[in-house]
Amino acid sequence: MGPLVRVRLLVAYHGLRFHGLAPQPGLRTVVGELATALGKVLRMEPPVLAMSGRTDAGVHAWGQVLSFDAPDGAEVSDLSRKLTRMLGPEIVVRSAEVVSGDFHARHSAVGRRYRYTLLARAEADPFLADTTWWVPEPLDLRAMRAACDPLIGKHDFGAFCRRQGDAILVRDLRSAEWVMPSEGLLRFDVEASSFCQQMVRSLVGTLVDVGRGKRTTADVMTALRHPDRTNAGPVAPPHGLCLWEVRY
Amino acid sequence: MGPLVRVRLLVAYHGLRFHGLAPQPGLRTVVGELATALGKVLRMEPPVLAMSGRTDAGVHAWGQVLSFDAPDGAEVSDLSRKLTRMLGPEIVVRSAEVVSGDFHARHSAVGRRYRYTLLARAEADPFLADTTWWVPEPLDLRAMRAACDPLIGKHDFGAFCRRQGDAILVRDLRSAEWVMPSEGLLRFDVEASSFCQQMVRSLVGTLVDVGRGKRTTADVMTALRHPDRTNAGPVAPPHGLCLWEVRY
Repeated sequence: MGPLVRVRLLVAYHGLRFHGLAPQPGLRTVVGELATALGKVLRMEPPVLAMSGRTDAGVHAWGQVLSFDAPDGAEVSDLSRKLTRMLGPEIVVRSAEVVSGDFHARHSAVGRRYRYTLLARAEADPFLADTTWWVPEPLDLRAMRAACDPLIGKHDFGAFCRRQGDAILVRDLRSAEWVMPSEGLLRFDVEASSFCQQMVRSLVGTLVDVGRGKRTTADVMTALRHPDRTNAGPVAPPHGLCLWEVRY
Repeated sequence: MGPLVRVRLLVAYHGLRFHGLAPQPGLRTVVGELATALGKVLRMEPPVLAMSGRTDAGVHAWGQVLSFDAPDGAEVSDLSRKLTRMLGPEIVVRSAEVVSGDFHARHSAVGRRYRYTLLARAEADPFLADTTWWVPEPLDLRAMRAACDPLIGKHDFGAFCRRQGDAILVRDLRSAEWVMPSEGLLRFDVEASSFCQQMVRSLVGTLVDVGRGKRTTADVMTALRHPDRTNAGPVAPPHGLCLWEVRY
């Protein structure tokens, strides 16, 4: 094998069309489809792709970042258009570029931003059903905003994460806020250096419980002090969640 | 059969999930699903539903209106919630109400408003793929707006319609305009007392040709004076179109 170049892909995908991001034998996954398409376009073995982070089945991405090695001289300039033509509209490769050889989609990332969107109104909408969690009951937005404050900073988020062995579940939450992009839509924007599994969805489920009057800010603080799953609310459904941006 | 009441439904649906609106034997259609569900909920024979107008396969609706007769005493107050629970999120029954016995979804309608949405930018979007027509080439919006002017008023729209026998294709277009609801989105809002088949999509296909510099306002005027299909542009794809509102 000759010299290699490192390539970085910026990728959007519709999470409900795939069995998650990471390759799984016999199942249609985002990385599985991408690797196959890259193999065809670049006339190489389907490459191993590094991912900025895993997204669960049903979770969308606008700004997922992946990296892999291609043979030096590979035609990268037109790669995003070719891949999107093969894989779109479920997968859109927003850009493809040659980067420094020490770039790694996961290890080089310094921050991740997620968005979770609620359709917070009595009336459902068939066009937003794939990308929002419909919550028809009235929500107390002020209470939901107040309950974000104690989450900011470095905490053991074990109450909000799916436990996997003895993994450390301490994370540094840089920002978390509820915004109303338009009438009836409610969006949770959250950023951290990294997240553990189901963390954003579990935060959203807990904060929606606060909005419904079933939990309080004090309950959220208890969940942070006593990182036990039973102290947090339910896990919000995956299709409202979108990996928005990865920072390097 | 005892006395009947006329019921009016306001319905949204995702056009790509059905083989069109009108019932067709052996195919999943919006009215077919609604009639079956109504039969179950109201414990009656699946009713015949009048439609404000047909939408082609793949065309969406936010404000479709349907009417039918139910037995007097039928529980209508909770009907929209029950139907949406059975048929959602592909079909959402936004409201259901008893109306005057002379109301008819089609005959009583005095105006129809359609929206056609383009994703007019270089970058595709997997979340808008079902509801917008992606046009990556640059468009001359000023030319597209200017070409709307001659369309307003009473014309033979034969160049823009699928001919069906000797049907009269004269229609009175009340308004037609291009708006930009947000960066990269371009929406064609159009209203008339009624439309003939494929008319909105054919107008959009022609106006996008104008935006691409392939046609001119003069060509649009020619198509109105000589109502022949060959004088209009291509028919835009169905999934960008949405029946927005019916006026009574």
